[in-house]
Amino acid sequence: MKDITGGVCAPKGFKAGGIWCGIKAGSKKRDLGLIYSEKICTAAAMFTTNKVQAASVLVSREHLSNGKLHAIIANSGNANACTGEQGLAVARRMAELAADEFAIGVKEVAVASTGVIGVPLPIAAIENSIAALANSLRGDEAGHAAALEAIMTTDIRKKEAAIEIDIDGKDGAASAKVRIGAMTKGSGMIHPNMATMLCFITTDAAISREMLEISLQYAVRRSFNRLTVDGDTSTNDTVIIMANGEAGNPLISAADDNQKIFAEALTQVCIKLTKAMARDGEGASKLVTVTVNGASDEKTAEALAKSVASSSLVKTACFGADANWGRVLCALGYAGVDFDPGKTQVRFKSRSGEIEVCRNGASVPFSEQDAKRILSEEEIEILADIGDGSGSGALTGSATVWGCDLTYDYVKINGDYRS
Amino acid sequence: MKDITGGVCAPKGFKAGGIWCGIKAGSKKRDLGLIYSEKICTAAAMFTTNKVQAASVLVSREHLSNGKLHAIIANSGNANACTGEQGLAVARRMAELAADEFAIGVKEVAVASTGVIGVPLPIAAIENSIAALANSLRGDEAGHAAALEAIMTTDIRKKEAAIEIDIDGKDGAASAKVRIGAMTKGSGMIHPNMATMLCFITTDAAISREMLEISLQYAVRRSFNRLTVDGDTSTNDTVIIMANGEAGNPLISAADDNQKIFAEALTQVCIKLTKAMARDGEGASKLVTVTVNGASDEKTAEALAKSVASSSLVKTACFGADANWGRVLCALGYAGVDFDPGKTQVRFKSRSGEIEVCRNGASVPFSEQDAKRILSEEEIEILADIGDGSGSGALTGSATVWGCDLTYDYVKINGDYRS
Repeated sequence: MKDITGGVCAPKGFKAGGIWCGIKAGSKKRDLGLIYSEKICTAAAMFTTNKVQAASVLVSREHLSNGKLHAIIANSGNANACTGEQGLAVARRMAELAADEFAIGVKEVAVASTGVIGVPLPIAAIENSIAALANSLRGDEAGHAAALEAIMTTDIRKKEAAIEIDIDGKDGAASAKVRIGAMTKGSGMIHPNMATMLCFITTDAAISREMLEISLQYAVRRSFNRLTVDGDTSTNDTVIIMANGEAGNPLISAADDNQKIFAEALTQVCIKLTKAMARDGEGASKLVTVTVNGASDEKTAEALAKSVASSSLVKTACFGADANWGRVLCALGYAGVDFDPGKTQVRFKSRSGEIEVCRNGASVPFSEQDAKRILSEEEIEILADIGDGSGSGALTGSATVWGCDLTYDYVKINGDYRS
Repeated sequence: MKDITGGVCAPKGFKAGGIWCGIKAGSKKRDLGLIYSEKICTAAAMFTTNKVQAASVLVSREHLSNGKLHAIIANSGNANACTGEQGLAVARRMAELAADEFAIGVKEVAVASTGVIGVPLPIAAIENSIAALANSLRGDEAGHAAALEAIMTTDIRKKEAAIEIDIDGKDGAASAKVRIGAMTKGSGMIHPNMATMLCFITTDAAISREMLEISLQYAVRRSFNRLTVDGDTSTNDTVIIMANGEAGNPLISAADDNQKIFAEALTQVCIKLTKAMARDGEGASKLVTVTVNGASDEKTAEALAKSVASSSLVKTACFGADANWGRVLCALGYAGVDFDPGKTQVRFKSRSGEIEVCRNGASVPFSEQDAKRILSEEEIEILADIGDGSGSGALTGSATVWGCDLTYDYVKINGDYRS
């Protein structure tokens, strides 16, 4: 597996573009994006579990029901959520505009929106700009970058990935190159399951709908669903993957080795984006990775790790580079799963070193100065071993969760988001 | 029911005191407190549900097992949590020191600690000061105030209450005056169930252990367990009530009218303290009261209200006086209970007025200026009616939850708590 450039345009046969159409009234930043494959794609998607679902989610869910897509049209600046019947009509109209432009079926277009909730989306801005949007399509890095910019809201960094893997070739060929490209937006309102995030993934793999769905679920469970920024689950979360089969590999249609290679590669792509989102969490100054080892099973480890990564007190301690491990133990304690605090070990780690701060549920002598240095890095790890307290990990259930610190800037950004 | 002065010393027969013994090394603020009744009390208590329990909680739970208490000894500046076997010995020693001083049984003393986690509690400081602590006892407002100061950590305001109620008198007397007094500390790490809080309640009611327990559970369920500051449930949460029977009322030993009057009064005392804690949440600038009406039952309403009050995005919007009702709807949506967003109404309210911002799950025209004025008050209410969207409340399940806004100061206080 190797990293390549091009984002969603890295896989063969995909184009992308983005323009400013006027939804973001106060700026000239791009606010309308498109991803398009001339060849129809097999598609799979996962959506928010929130009871309140954006109009775009409702429409995309309906359109994805037959597992085929040509295009995704997405806007930022307005979430088209809590907008009632009118919002639904607007979301349908967005898909229709793209479908008419490319002479494809309306159900072959997915729709996504992100931004402020409860304000009608000005569809006229999109109607007036759909031709310009189609004209902006390019099959290269620049096309990807324009589409990515068009889905960003409070995001500061671009979150993107593209990789190439080798899987078995067609008709006895030794191997075929398959590419996966992705972009995502999301920096606040991020919590399992999933995140206030839009994630669009393209691949030129030839893969059946069922195997694409299984692979996506496998990847999302180990990446986006283990990300937490502020505990809020949004109304608009959407992950869509489109596979156009242009790579020339034999169709992946069973849970064989090729499917495993594909799913693992997709997982790595999603983890890369997950870490980028955590690092770019609203106001975040640090990426905080929490790993729990020695649990009875993975689910228990995940619940414990999420509890630590979600704790406002742990997050502020990370911000302050304060080795307040008691808050870690406390957050493990209210995770709602069974474990023995008296056998728990806690360590902090970063590129500046690693330090044990708690053994058997109690303090061990450690240098506050060293701990401060370790926690002052931009990427820090909290490691909790709940096995036998020695760190040897007698039990093997483990899970890693990604989050960020809680800072003044989070409060600043969200205290006045709408203006 | 009328408010009276005196706090925990308002009920007959109780004394309280507090001194500085040196646990808070950096200041001369009181850090060791005591509440004492010469007459042995019937007692009941509720403790943290965290798997990690402070040594003081483990010891008090054990001592409370026979339902009798003479005294509570409590310190601030150190939570005596995550301190292993040594911590347990220290908690036992605290109780023993108080017991020896008053020649009472060690099991008749409850112990409580609050402060930093994972640091050994310097018991010598308490040993050297136990006589001075006993000497500080007074049966008046000043004694109450000294004990209250001794349990405060990052608390800014004093949280206290005292009331007097009339219940049936003894031997045919028309009525007897019964008093309930209380103090509490807690401003961060506060979330159901319960709060990083210590709450000590005294009453001169004559009441059986069983009725005291039932009354306490009734009150806590409707007050402290509906408080959230930052979603963290502490290792030390403790609520203890002591009843010495000096009021001269006939013993409350059944779930009769007198018991109901007592439980309701106790609930009002606890709600007053709950609101004071929310108002004094770490860094809080506003008390945020969330009420959900029109739910199928009280439990559903409570889950929805807690979800809104816990949302970091709602809390920052409250800080910014931003009428971002979409975040309220979103938080209702991920509460994990069933309801129809399309029938939901949201209103904001304060002493500056009331404004409807969402009807049938979608926006209604409203004055942003009016909303800003309403949300700029120090006490604001978020009202969600999920019944039929008209606010008429066809279904009757309702619940109120108390919280606060999320501010720069929360981050500041917790980014460097230990120093």
